[in-house]
Amino acid sequence: MKIAEILDKYKGGELDMAEAETLIKSSSYDEMGFAKLDTQREQRSGFPEVIFCAGKPDDYLVSIYQKMVANDGCAFGTRASQEQAALVKAAVPEAVYDPVSRILKVEPAGGYKRTGAGGVVAVCSAGTADISVAEEAAQTAEYFGAEVIRVYDIGVSGIHRLLSKVDIIRSADAVVAVAGMEGALPTVLGGLVRNPVIAVPTSVGYGANFHGLSALITMINSCANGISVVNIDNGYGAGYIATQIGRLAATGR
Amino acid sequence: MKIAEILDKYKGGELDMAEAETLIKSSSYDEMGFAKLDTQREQRSGFPEVIFCAGKPDDYLVSIYQKMVANDGCAFGTRASQEQAALVKAAVPEAVYDPVSRILKVEPAGGYKRTGAGGVVAVCSAGTADISVAEEAAQTAEYFGAEVIRVYDIGVSGIHRLLSKVDIIRSADAVVAVAGMEGALPTVLGGLVRNPVIAVPTSVGYGANFHGLSALITMINSCANGISVVNIDNGYGAGYIATQIGRLAATGR
Amino acid sequence: MKIAEILDKYKGGELDMAEAETLIKSSSYDEMGFAKLDTQREQRSGFPEVIFCAGKPDDYLVSIYQKMVANDGCAFGTRASQEQAALVKAAVPEAVYDPVSRILKVEPAGGYKRTGAGGVVAVCSAGTADISVAEEAAQTAEYFGAEVIRVYDIGVSGIHRLLSKVDIIRSADAVVAVAGMEGALPTVLGGLVRNPVIAVPTSVGYGANFHGLSALITMINSCANGISVVNIDNGYGAGYIATQIGRLAATGR
Amino acid sequence: MKIAEILDKYKGGELDMAEAETLIKSSSYDEMGFAKLDTQREQRSGFPEVIFCAGKPDDYLVSIYQKMVANDGCAFGTRASQEQAALVKAAVPEAVYDPVSRILKVEPAGGYKRTGAGGVVAVCSAGTADISVAEEAAQTAEYFGAEVIRVYDIGVSGIHRLLSKVDIIRSADAVVAVAGMEGALPTVLGGLVRNPVIAVPTSVGYGANFHGLSALITMINSCANGISVVNIDNGYGAGYIATQIGRLAATGR
Amino acid sequence: MKIAEILDKYKGGELDMAEAETLIKSSSYDEMGFAKLDTQREQRSGFPEVIFCAGKPDDYLVSIYQKMVANDGCAFGTRASQEQAALVKAAVPEAVYDPVSRILKVEPAGGYKRTGAGGVVAVCSAGTADISVAEEAAQTAEYFGAEVIRVYDIGVSGIHRLLSKVDIIRSADAVVAVAGMEGALPTVLGGLVRNPVIAVPTSVGYGANFHGLSALITMINSCANGISVVNIDNGYGAGYIATQIGRLAATGR
Amino acid sequence: MKIAEILDKYKGGELDMAEAETLIKSSSYDEMGFAKLDTQREQRSGFPEVIFCAGKPDDYLVSIYQKMVANDGCAFGTRASQEQAALVKAAVPEAVYDPVSRILKVEPAGGYKRTGAGGVVAVCSAGTADISVAEEAAQTAEYFGAEVIRVYDIGVSGIHRLLSKVDIIRSADAVVAVAGMEGALPTVLGGLVRNPVIAVPTSVGYGANFHGLSALITMINSCANGISVVNIDNGYGAGYIATQIGRLAATGR
Amino acid sequence: MKIAEILDKYKGGELDMAEAETLIKSSSYDEMGFAKLDTQREQRSGFPEVIFCAGKPDDYLVSIYQKMVANDGCAFGTRASQEQAALVKAAVPEAVYDPVSRILKVEPAGGYKRTGAGGVVAVCSAGTADISVAEEAAQTAEYFGAEVIRVYDIGVSGIHRLLSKVDIIRSADAVVAVAGMEGALPTVLGGLVRNPVIAVPTSVGYGANFHGLSALITMINSCANGISVVNIDNGYGAGYIATQIGRLAATGR
Amino acid sequence: MKIAEILDKYKGGELDMAEAETLIKSSSYDEMGFAKLDTQREQRSGFPEVIFCAGKPDDYLVSIYQKMVANDGCAFGTRASQEQAALVKAAVPEAVYDPVSRILKVEPAGGYKRTGAGGVVAVCSAGTADISVAEEAAQTAEYFGAEVIRVYDIGVSGIHRLLSKVDIIRSADAVVAVAGMEGALPTVLGGLVRNPVIAVPTSVGYGANFHGLSALITMINSCANGISVVNIDNGYGAGYIATQIGRLAATGR
Repeated sequence: MKIAEILDKYKGGELDMAEAETLIKSSSYDEMGFAKLDTQREQRSGFPEVIFCAGKPDDYLVSIYQKMVANDGCAFGTRASQEQAALVKAAVPEAVYDPVSRILKVEPAGGYKRTGAGGVVAVCSAGTADISVAEEAAQTAEYFGAEVIRVYDIGVSGIHRLLSKVDIIRSADAVVAVAGMEGALPTVLGGLVRNPVIAVPTSVGYGANFHGLSALITMINSCANGISVVNIDNGYGAGYIATQIGRLAATGR
Repeated sequence: MKIAEILDKYKGGELDMAEAETLIKSSSYDEMGFAKLDTQREQRSGFPEVIFCAGKPDDYLVSIYQKMVANDGCAFGTRASQEQAALVKAAVPEAVYDPVSRILKVEPAGGYKRTGAGGVVAVCSAGTADISVAEEAAQTAEYFGAEVIRVYDIGVSGIHRLLSKVDIIRSADAVVAVAGMEGALPTVLGGLVRNPVIAVPTSVGYGANFHGLSALITMINSCANGISVVNIDNGYGAGYIATQIGRLAATGR
Repeated sequence: MKIAEILDKYKGGELDMAEAETLIKSSSYDEMGFAKLDTQREQRSGFPEVIFCAGKPDDYLVSIYQKMVANDGCAFGTRASQEQAALVKAAVPEAVYDPVSRILKVEPAGGYKRTGAGGVVAVCSAGTADISVAEEAAQTAEYFGAEVIRVYDIGVSGIHRLLSKVDIIRSADAVVAVAGMEGALPTVLGGLVRNPVIAVPTSVGYGANFHGLSALITMINSCANGISVVNIDNGYGAGYIATQIGRLAATGR
Repeated sequence: MKIAEILDKYKGGELDMAEAETLIKSSSYDEMGFAKLDTQREQRSGFPEVIFCAGKPDDYLVSIYQKMVANDGCAFGTRASQEQAALVKAAVPEAVYDPVSRILKVEPAGGYKRTGAGGVVAVCSAGTADISVAEEAAQTAEYFGAEVIRVYDIGVSGIHRLLSKVDIIRSADAVVAVAGMEGALPTVLGGLVRNPVIAVPTSVGYGANFHGLSALITMINSCANGISVVNIDNGYGAGYIATQIGRLAATGR
Repeated sequence: MKIAEILDKYKGGELDMAEAETLIKSSSYDEMGFAKLDTQREQRSGFPEVIFCAGKPDDYLVSIYQKMVANDGCAFGTRASQEQAALVKAAVPEAVYDPVSRILKVEPAGGYKRTGAGGVVAVCSAGTADISVAEEAAQTAEYFGAEVIRVYDIGVSGIHRLLSKVDIIRSADAVVAVAGMEGALPTVLGGLVRNPVIAVPTSVGYGANFHGLSALITMINSCANGISVVNIDNGYGAGYIATQIGRLAATGR
Repeated sequence: MKIAEILDKYKGGELDMAEAETLIKSSSYDEMGFAKLDTQREQRSGFPEVIFCAGKPDDYLVSIYQKMVANDGCAFGTRASQEQAALVKAAVPEAVYDPVSRILKVEPAGGYKRTGAGGVVAVCSAGTADISVAEEAAQTAEYFGAEVIRVYDIGVSGIHRLLSKVDIIRSADAVVAVAGMEGALPTVLGGLVRNPVIAVPTSVGYGANFHGLSALITMINSCANGISVVNIDNGYGAGYIATQIGRLAATGR
Repeated sequence: MKIAEILDKYKGGELDMAEAETLIKSSSYDEMGFAKLDTQREQRSGFPEVIFCAGKPDDYLVSIYQKMVANDGCAFGTRASQEQAALVKAAVPEAVYDPVSRILKVEPAGGYKRTGAGGVVAVCSAGTADISVAEEAAQTAEYFGAEVIRVYDIGVSGIHRLLSKVDIIRSADAVVAVAGMEGALPTVLGGLVRNPVIAVPTSVGYGANFHGLSALITMINSCANGISVVNIDNGYGAGYIATQIGRLAATGR
Repeated sequence: MKIAEILDKYKGGELDMAEAETLIKSSSYDEMGFAKLDTQREQRSGFPEVIFCAGKPDDYLVSIYQKMVANDGCAFGTRASQEQAALVKAAVPEAVYDPVSRILKVEPAGGYKRTGAGGVVAVCSAGTADISVAEEAAQTAEYFGAEVIRVYDIGVSGIHRLLSKVDIIRSADAVVAVAGMEGALPTVLGGLVRNPVIAVPTSVGYGANFHGLSALITMINSCANGISVVNIDNGYGAGYIATQIGRLAATGR
């Protein structure tokens, strides 16, 4: 019940004051700008719920997929292991798993009906080992309705590869820049493009990379403008933000 | 000279091959999508050059202000100390200094003529001690043409303050969330708004905050969607990115 | 022998001075406010001994359970692995293992006879992945005699969930707040409740969470009042402290 | 206006639905269990507002003291510098400054009329250099209504000093244990007392103490039961929590 | 050849100048106070070579044991795994393995003939989980000729256990104090004994103990006199140093 | 009163049981092997009290010096600043200050009467910038009765300097090795001498030395035998331990 | 096509301006000093491409080896696991795997025809456990054409071993110094040789070595001249740089 | 005396055996490949001694300059403060100070007579704030005899600046790459040049740059070939190594 309804019923005598007060206090926060789980999240943020598979107990994971497919006819999960994928597929046969991005999804029957946030997102990766994270970003952006341009293996230790792709990258509304090791790609990109760069450090590397900390610190200290950073290996997060930006570009507010 | 011109002159015999080759190689990279200092930066990124005052030798700083004001009739610098402001004002009397944001600027004669990137940016701060960084973000966004909504002192240890401001924050194209200490503000905001949140950790705090590292790590690990992070105390960077996003929202691409 | 007894016997000639002096020096420290292992620990702290199973050699662990059950008719151990549980159950068939909390216990024949420390403890968790640690806290508090209110999955990135539970949380004598990733839950709770909040960082997360360090640092830097912190994943410790507080509330001193 | 009032006025026609809805949404959250600044904070937490002086601009600090004294006849601030104390005393002559604890306060005209949270708090310090932080804890607890037992200079490298004070420390409802350098005091105390120990690491030390990090980590890793930790040098926070506990002990809930 | 011999032979014409010069330059450094591998190490340091088994390739490890037993009739290795022990025992049947200390040794036929460095070493451990490291220290000291007093499970969270053992610990020439978690044992011991305390942090613990770093930092920051620290889990190193000290006490220089 | 006395008086009726019990409990712990401040510390450890001047409030520092000189005719303090030295000298004119070691002392009228712990300590430093710390170690050892051999500026980047001094260093009962920057000196010394090496990392260096952490970590990881480590810049601690060892060598136990 | 060619064809009418401009912009960057993958890398750097095997998907790795052997008749990969070696050998039977260095290579039919960069590289290791990394460096240098002098097991805790090898090490154009644990070898070598020392920290060690960080920090802080550092365990990188230097020595520029 | 001389004199009876042996042992290590201070360092390394001024006591610094100028007619010191420069110039009037590089030197009367190591070194800096460190590198290289090419302000956030300078940088025998903040310059350069790149992280930046650690870690993790790293702000070290390399290129061995 929305606050307006509660007020109406109170005025009409259907609710006494104690009932009305309780309802207002305990109502979902939609009425105050907050949302109930599931349906209201999409209303609030414009994007449907996504499943973070890693670490979820098997039973819980399977039943979430079952429930989301039952409700919505589709589901999208990240960080699924091969084993989790097998379990979910046993219960939800239409589920499809991509071992590169580790995304486990059920596409809706008639294809994505989503009108689409729109927007164009360029997903760039420094090395081939970063592609797993880059694909998580790219497929997330596609799931949320963006058009994705993939530009892989343009690490700055061979700068000519990146330079030959500048025009296509500049055409995007937002750029996701994925890099491990020394993580310098976003800085170079930041100096070449007009729109925001979302930097994703990866855990690719060894020794003093400290599982991605080196790339994270590099990106946070970037001297280029327009660069903000998400957590190590967080391709999903970067794809999400890039699509938020693309949506604004495509649709105005 | 653009590549087209060089080609023309070569064909016309004004340049021999060695001259043409040298010119192409050493030409500014505008022709390839890159820009020369100053004018071309604004062409490339849509935003004019900004002066990072901290650590600049006095002579250098003064002459940069003098040159920029001579060229453009205006200038905008961040992280200026009281001493630097005095020095610049001695040479450029129309310079104005704000000790809170530490911004030192010369506004153009007829006011900002900039057509404006447009867009609406909400700048939120957790505590009153974060306002210096928040103002750097806010004034940067204004300088680059955004409309700024300031929402200060809404730290999550008194969540009711934030909740009462949700509607106004949700109306922005991008949100800058500035917080020190435990840095939890962006996570709560990320769950309440639709558009990107740029998180700015500040060095406010003591003890195990490690000069802002605590807030930085909190923000990078945020479990909310739509949050990306800039360097500690980097209000300028967040204001820049928020305006990039606002520009996309206001103007499409 | 208590000091009083020793003095008596010395006066009565049963002990000579050397004997009496030795006895006093080497006596258990009960007389000085300290306790002997087992029985005196409960006298001293009001709580029985608990077994930290992790890393204990198999033989040692089994014999501890056997001895405690023989002495007291019950036993309570934390951080038991599936393998340890199987070993102990082979020797102590009445042992019961909960794989979520990893608690391995033998309940006393007639149920908990403990008069109970009393007190009400609210155990809150930010996400579903934190429930393992939260249950360790909850079951510890129950074992020590507190009434426990479980409030799970109220992470601050969806603040409406937490807000709808404020009244019930405020009713507790002490609040245990369990959170991983950015660890912001205790700060928001600290601003909403009247009684102490024991914050438990968990190792849940990835990338720059550094196995729980991110949440630990967040909590230590909390700007809210009334928050103190225990070690990463230390649900037991938080349950213990919350029950100490609940006992004071329930019984006065 | 409380929700009940708003409902009444709506029913009575004094408010139309839009007005009522707006009032409910934007009302202070007292009605939902939250409080407005100042008065409602004390209602919510039972403790009045305290001023964190460090880093506050001079004008702001002075006016806060003036306002709080005007409203309440008293004020209590922590981390005040000698300079800040002088400034405030110029404007608020009845302010009193303690350079050891760095507390700057105005006591109410007729002495503390507060009925008092009650409860007994023991504040222990390891070394003489920790006394500044210990006094911040002690005076905070006193301000909030607790009776304080001070036990200073009982560091564990001379364990006999601590042992001679065990009985008095055990008599408290909560123990604040303040220590720098290797920070071992809380662990030893935790094994000797029955009630909660709030551990406060201090920045006292040099070399690899990393400004208090050594003591913080020691305390977080304590193998004793009943120990929770606050930020480095956060005497205020520990005094607050200890008084929360003492209040529960003194008054029941 | 020693320098004296070379000089003699040169004078006697058995060597020409070039030969003599080369011999002096390339001679082992015994003559200058340095030693050749194996025999001279014992001459130089007074202690025989020890084998650090961890990480040694299997073939290499077996042949070292074979060679040392062939030469000396005995061998002593630390950090041997169960698998390494089996391999060595297959080749050197008289080898004996202790799975607690992970020491793999061959005792000389007629028992230790070593006259012994002498000296008395107390090896103390805080918890039962630290015993593996403590035994490495104890058995190392015994191997090098010290008499060892074992005092285990005297962690400072139950200080009465330690206090009851002070006299026996004080009787040692050197004390090895082994502790994990918060690592406070050496500080308390340092205040109670007269002779040096060698502190050994262990990796025992979890969460913010960072694999022993917490205990290491605690010990380095100890406010007690007479405490020096070795690497995490380095029982061998502490046993070695304690025996060096015991040797000085037993034999003078 | 010693326990024996208390027992006697109790038997003789001078004390009743309650009195005797209280006296025993609250008596100084001399009877149990512990000491009262000042006199008993020297009894317990064999070394007199030393003043750690840094951070001591002026009044407190001056009165400590006054009291110690009044009681013992001498005093010894470390880490005294130039300002502290001036203050103490104003009150205690016979005080002498060494700005290199920052030791502030009053020598006894007839010179050091101390019979001396005896023993020979070699204090080695890697560079000239480490001499301040080295002198703190050397003068501490001398104060406690050791004979000190100073061997300065023998850093391992010019290994010939160290090699020419090996014989003299080997003649000491204990070696203090002071080094900043990469801190390699103790490892090389450890391989050349027979007796224990106390390694003292210094904060000398810049950049990634992290105020001495680099040298500390180097020393803790030393692959040489016989090396233990004290806190950064803790010359006093190393001098103390070296003298403990020297005393054992000189006097047996 | 080189820029000169494009210009020629444009002048000759084979290309119109748009075609010429496009070709110049999109041409490989050879013409500007950059290279296309494979062939041009060797032209640019003088060294052929090398395969970093670790983490490469199996299919990708096998096809890279197949392609490189097809093109060049040889291939060289680092960090190959036993499993990867087996897979590649199944497809490329002439591949040879060295389990010590983990190098997997195909030597050209007639042996290395490479004229060779020339130069002499000394590869030194501190301990036997560092040999794996040292061999990666040595075999890399050999692959790139250097003559390699191996000097293993000369750690500085037994300095005489190193000293006896100084002349041979001094004869090299560049020195690779490989060391784990405290990492002091490069500093001592740096003081003894004339040419650059490339320091390689290894992850060998335990406890506070933090997987090689201790050695890395030691080497970065070295007080000797002529030392620069590569990543932990990066033998390949050091071998590469040493050969670059050797090439300059052997061939002039 | 050289060993040959000693042998001669011994044979000739001028020395007896004890004298000869002592002389050989205590002789400078020139004969064994080591050098005496000053003259022999230059013989050993080919480069004269340099003074690290920072932290040197005033008297010591002045007398070093006086002695070196007296001996050699010239002197070269790094990290001299303005105050130190004034002191030295008072005693050694011909000393010249450069406040940018902080180098304080006395050039020899007839100009540098040094035949010169030769070689060409390119010193590149990312930003204008890095020029102080870059100049230390450049002037060091010049002092040691290299020809220096300065290429400043070519940070990778504006990649066109760097690209226009590739040819000149590629012409050097060694490249010094100086960068703060995110430190990406060496990686991009490493992919473009043929010869070694010495990377110098600087402390330029703020927030999470941790006084240069960010740039250091970036450079250590560089994915480009040919990059080795020196300490933060260590321009001197990089200039030294680059000149070692240039010398090899110029002169062969």
